[in-house]
Amino acid sequence: MGFRITRSAQASWQGTVTGGGGRLALGGGAFAGPYSLRARTEDVERTTNPEELIAAAEAGCFTMSLANLLEEAGHPARDVQTTARATLEQVQSGFDITRIALTSVADVPDLDPETFDRIAAEAKNCTVSRALSGVEITLEATLASHAPAGA
Amino acid sequence: MGFRITRSAQASWQGTVTGGGGRLALGGGAFAGPYSLRARTEDVERTTNPEELIAAAEAGCFTMSLANLLEEAGHPARDVQTTARATLEQVQSGFDITRIALTSVADVPDLDPETFDRIAAEAKNCTVSRALSGVEITLEATLASHAPAGA
Repeated sequence: MGFRITRSAQASWQGTVTGGGGRLALGGGAFAGPYSLRARTEDVERTTNPEELIAAAEAGCFTMSLANLLEEAGHPARDVQTTARATLEQVQSGFDITRIALTSVADVPDLDPETFDRIAAEAKNCTVSRALSGVEITLEATLASHAPAGA
Repeated sequence: MGFRITRSAQASWQGTVTGGGGRLALGGGAFAGPYSLRARTEDVERTTNPEELIAAAEAGCFTMSLANLLEEAGHPARDVQTTARATLEQVQSGFDITRIALTSVADVPDLDPETFDRIAAEAKNCTVSRALSGVEITLEATLASHAPAGA
């Protein structure tokens, strides 16, 4: 049998959905804090929500995968910076995460843009992307030397 | 057009996959910290990984959905406690998140177990579960008064 590992997290909730609230905790102890309905549908500072956790998992998995594939191709990246934006949208059945847009800039010495694009497209098929098969995932990846100013 | 909102997160990486490392930040500012390959495949305290973030998103979404559906059915929960365990497993194509096991205990006054089971099964089809359609999700939900000791 191959490698297998389990990662966990805890959630709690007290009271109604609009008036109550809950807490989320990562199993490894890196983070524990409040989450709420308001944090999903309005802007509440420092209160998390499932959508941004999904965005973080996708950004993290893609970025690590890109670093890995660039290294395997003999072109290790000096730096990769990625943003993932998850869209929560009202649909007939309720609310769906319809789309995750990845924007990534990689600083890779001496790599041509065509090879980079091919490797980045491969990284887009990372572990978390495959898990999120109900979501359309888009990618804009650029080499740092070719990135538009301010990106 | 219906309601639509975007939630974001950032990831960075420097260096090789085994020797380097990265950081993850939630868009709302609730958490920022390191993540690493070792935190995915070994036990590293206080360093996060995509799998436990997926588990947190799923636990949070299910728990809020269960509180919401119980309230709508006229049986608001006093308390819901959920653990999600995501399994990362080596498969032919690499590593997949093959399974998320939800274990949940709800304290709901005057509710019969059959109605609770039906509502809990409906909550399992929450927004994040639908996004994670590449993953088998299982649920063990119990009423607090019916929960085995120590659950």
